[in-house]
Amino acid sequence: MDIGVLGTGSVGQAIATRLADLGHSVVMGARDAANETAAAWAEANGGRAGTFADAASHGEIVINATAGVHALSALAAADGGQDNLAGKVVADVTNPLDFSGGFPPVLSVANTNSLAEQIQAAFPEARVVKTLNTVTAAVMVNPDLVPGEHVLFLSGEDPAAKKTVAGLLGEFGWPAGRLIDLGGIRSARTAEMYVPLWVSLYQALGTANFNIAIVKAEAEEDEE
Amino acid sequence: MDIGVLGTGSVGQAIATRLADLGHSVVMGARDAANETAAAWAEANGGRAGTFADAASHGEIVINATAGVHALSALAAADGGQDNLAGKVVADVTNPLDFSGGFPPVLSVANTNSLAEQIQAAFPEARVVKTLNTVTAAVMVNPDLVPGEHVLFLSGEDPAAKKTVAGLLGEFGWPAGRLIDLGGIRSARTAEMYVPLWVSLYQALGTANFNIAIVKAEAEEDEE
Repeated sequence: MDIGVLGTGSVGQAIATRLADLGHSVVMGARDAANETAAAWAEANGGRAGTFADAASHGEIVINATAGVHALSALAAADGGQDNLAGKVVADVTNPLDFSGGFPPVLSVANTNSLAEQIQAAFPEARVVKTLNTVTAAVMVNPDLVPGEHVLFLSGEDPAAKKTVAGLLGEFGWPAGRLIDLGGIRSARTAEMYVPLWVSLYQALGTANFNIAIVKAEAEEDEE
Repeated sequence: MDIGVLGTGSVGQAIATRLADLGHSVVMGARDAANETAAAWAEANGGRAGTFADAASHGEIVINATAGVHALSALAAADGGQDNLAGKVVADVTNPLDFSGGFPPVLSVANTNSLAEQIQAAFPEARVVKTLNTVTAAVMVNPDLVPGEHVLFLSGEDPAAKKTVAGLLGEFGWPAGRLIDLGGIRSARTAEMYVPLWVSLYQALGTANFNIAIVKAEAEEDEE
């Protein structure tokens, strides 16, 4: 598939590299067409580098892997006044982490709204799916790094878009049975609000290579 | 031990009943000394019923199981102008859930503050420990209801208070190895912010009797 990856940081690099390894045609987008990180990635991985708009116009799927606090402006650049995002599946994997007060970060939007909801509202014709934001980059693209039946969440309004994203996650190594559909885009705020706990756990566990599994009581049997 | 339980709802009932069954001397506190729910609980379980202040003055440990949005006023009544909370271990198990906009709820405080931090700030001599807020009442007092190595979190400034609370949790059935110390009271906001995801999962799973387990990568071996 033709996929645009917005962002040249660790998450963008991990996802773009995995997608290229899987045989997809990837354009890594940056704010500046001359971005050296993107150019180096393209050179090393057989993809292309370009602007955010180049990546978005290339992709049937556009993956937002920019820093969360800059995501809306990056997506505006990606849309480029040409509706590059209209009708596209936009997988939003970012978190609105605000480090301006130091570590640990707070969220720049939370509780009554979320980054994913803001993106969906700003680009109503985009088919936004929130996912992957609850694990570190290495685990996103290689879930077997962590043992056990750990899970990912998906939120979004468009069932077909969620199915498309679930297919890509399957290629990354996430079995369908470990993908939990939380519901519409509003539910993305609950996955984003988990991330401060993720940061606490990162500190408590001393590693970023972890995830959560869901365990539940056996269903009660119906009495006859 | 002498324990005061503030609140007569499902969480207060579950915890007070379990504590009484374990042989502790429990006073269930309500805003009104004539609260019929508390009186019925005391009659059925061999404890006592009283005001918030009665429960707090009785307890070496005070458990805040009031509705989160009323917790600060309940604790002010419990303190009673007599410093009933000073020096006490206050286990805060509530969530600041605001249902005024319907279901799902939002949090009445989040992100840059938390209910537990507000309680610690309002009662600086209380030894506040946040815990148990991430599971439903039945699982709080009977973790074996859910299979597997699922976990609880503790946050607070006072290591001895956390140890006391961990001891009670052990009596409930939580092994020490499944208690994760997230750090100081600030970290309570991250456990509180998980709760909206809990609500999403409750909807997705169709049961409240679940919890999360943490899985992590094997530690990398040192190369020789």
